[in-house]
Amino acid sequence: MADFDLDRLKFDEKGLIPAIVVDAKTKQVLTLAYMDRQSLEISLEKKLTCFWSRSRQKLWLKGETSGNFQHIVSITSDCDDDALVIEVNPDGPACHTGSFSCFTHEVFGS
Amino acid sequence: MADFDLDRLKFDEKGLIPAIVVDAKTKQVLTLAYMDRQSLEISLEKKLTCFWSRSRQKLWLKGETSGNFQHIVSITSDCDDDALVIEVNPDGPACHTGSFSCFTHEVFGS
Repeated sequence: MADFDLDRLKFDEKGLIPAIVVDAKTKQVLTLAYMDRQSLEISLEKKLTCFWSRSRQKLWLKGETSGNFQHIVSITSDCDDDALVIEVNPDGPACHTGSFSCFTHEVFGS
Repeated sequence: MADFDLDRLKFDEKGLIPAIVVDAKTKQVLTLAYMDRQSLEISLEKKLTCFWSRSRQKLWLKGETSGNFQHIVSITSDCDDDALVIEVNPDGPACHTGSFSCFTHEVFGS
């Protein structure tokens, strides 16, 4: 683990930071989820993504029910330290619909 | 432009939707920014990214001052229609620090 001080991170007024989950091999964006400090600490400890579920208002270890865990390869924060990119090796689809990525609705395509 | 009804998108209580900007060629995540409905419409019209600057509380055409415009290749929304991935061909660095990507601070690396 890098000597990164988690106190540097800026959690929003709800105590959350957005986490962009990316496939480590293809770099495809899989999902945008949110972490509170506790779920980030669990993620760092387990090397598995854990989020704060805004809809269910509880901690959510990704894969806990589906088996589709996301094994963390790296975590990077941005220039403002208010967003994260998390590279993972996923055990299965990221999306509850069964899609590999949550991003499937074409809004605009060239 | 795809026949996507923008009314499907869920903007948050501040009228914003997070937009993950990705380099179209390398798939590297460049930045996480936010759009309101108007900045999304401008983006679709100009095929250049336009955001809502939360710090400056105004519309922000990326590249307007720096010249580093981001030319939009595609826009995709997620299963909940509350987040966007925008693939772009950038004219220069995404970050105000001069970095190609805003995500440069290693929190955890294997």
